[in-house]
Amino acid sequence: MMKVVIIGSGNVAEATAIALKKCNLTPIQICARNRVNGSTLADKIGCSYTEDFTNIADADIYIISVSDDAIAQISSQLNIGNAIVLHTAGSVDMQSLSKHKNFGILYPLQTFTKGRYVEFKEIPILIEANSTKTLEVIKGVAEKLTDKVIEADINYRSKLHLAAVFACNFSNHMYAIAEKLLERDDIPFDILKPLIKETTNKVLDSKSPLDIQTGPAIRDDFKTKAKHCEMLTDKIIKRNIYVTLSQNIWEISKKTSQK
Amino acid sequence: MMKVVIIGSGNVAEATAIALKKCNLTPIQICARNRVNGSTLADKIGCSYTEDFTNIADADIYIISVSDDAIAQISSQLNIGNAIVLHTAGSVDMQSLSKHKNFGILYPLQTFTKGRYVEFKEIPILIEANSTKTLEVIKGVAEKLTDKVIEADINYRSKLHLAAVFACNFSNHMYAIAEKLLERDDIPFDILKPLIKETTNKVLDSKSPLDIQTGPAIRDDFKTKAKHCEMLTDKIIKRNIYVTLSQNIWEISKKTSQK
Repeated sequence: MMKVVIIGSGNVAEATAIALKKCNLTPIQICARNRVNGSTLADKIGCSYTEDFTNIADADIYIISVSDDAIAQISSQLNIGNAIVLHTAGSVDMQSLSKHKNFGILYPLQTFTKGRYVEFKEIPILIEANSTKTLEVIKGVAEKLTDKVIEADINYRSKLHLAAVFACNFSNHMYAIAEKLLERDDIPFDILKPLIKETTNKVLDSKSPLDIQTGPAIRDDFKTKAKHCEMLTDKIIKRNIYVTLSQNIWEISKKTSQK
Repeated sequence: MMKVVIIGSGNVAEATAIALKKCNLTPIQICARNRVNGSTLADKIGCSYTEDFTNIADADIYIISVSDDAIAQISSQLNIGNAIVLHTAGSVDMQSLSKHKNFGILYPLQTFTKGRYVEFKEIPILIEANSTKTLEVIKGVAEKLTDKVIEADINYRSKLHLAAVFACNFSNHMYAIAEKLLERDDIPFDILKPLIKETTNKVLDSKSPLDIQTGPAIRDDFKTKAKHCEMLTDKIIKRNIYVTLSQNIWEISKKTSQK
């Protein structure tokens, strides 16, 4: 049986540890500086916990799931011989682990929030390794987690991570601005939820988001846009966000229809 | 039995006509300038079609579902005596119908796309009227369509429409930009769909989108943001969208945590 240690106790570490447990690759240890989060996660998984890198358990695979900045430093503290060390970050080069003999990437393309269970089976997992042999081991683990394993270098992975920032973080921020606009008038955010649900269902069912755009920007409805600008009191949200995005929707749609 | 005529044959007209049919308020006629769309919709509903306003059928309610700019003009062509005339627009004042004796609003807060069926039961419908009696009639119709009927004036309705532009059109545009970024490298957009699905499921389950934000902007991860900016070749998308939204995510999160 393959022995896995998870290093870290944040959103991705938690989700990965739970997903591994679900497919009978239960981590044998959580190693994390944050005692509260680390021991809570270890309890959840039913494994040991250490905050001390010198106490780290013997394992076949060490999965570093910490903030991007901390990966190289944590890697430098690990002495693991022939074991494989991985990280789970979208935008960090595999070479940050190059001190080790066998290393690679296991990047789940998903947004994770503490305490929220996510089914891994549908998630694309991007993998990479410094040797064919190591890649096969990582592939074996990834294929237990999901049906969508993709071999990808840093270039492909970074591009996907960047696109994910737009598709996930920035779209969520649009919801946050909508909430802020309604808050001033005590209109509950929940009123928008059926709209948000259908917007997403449409894009999931469509070939391209360009095919399903609606609203004043795509119609170039000058009157409504002008009225909206009058209503927006926050200058950043008005000029730098509403106007810019409205223009960009119109320009991208024009370019596409000219194709 | 109440007799309804739908004026228009666009996305909202189609969805409204189908929804009315579903709750046994089948429109008796579609009146629309666009012959192809108008007669197709009438066939779908199983009612008559006319493009000629002088041929419009006698009815109790006329629902004008056309582009915002055309509402007042179409209203001016209607001679309907004591019947009620409504429009379905988010940002147009009820007074655009004030030539008539009985008028009001029936605004379904949703994004509609031709040929795509939308269940009305969950959709908030905002209503307004020029008299209590007319409001009661509109309420009766709206309550057949949905469980979420809200009486709202132009102020409330416009604010909701503005928030909807962010929650629907702008979030969809974030998907469009993500697609564009992947297109250059022939990465299929479908790879992002599990992420889009989970981003939305999270916001539907959460109290506020601010509670669930992830990614480099909310972490103020300078290195990743700088790397992303290097990767973005389109100046508008880099400077005016990526940088602005990243800053705004960080600023809104700071303000909220200071509360």
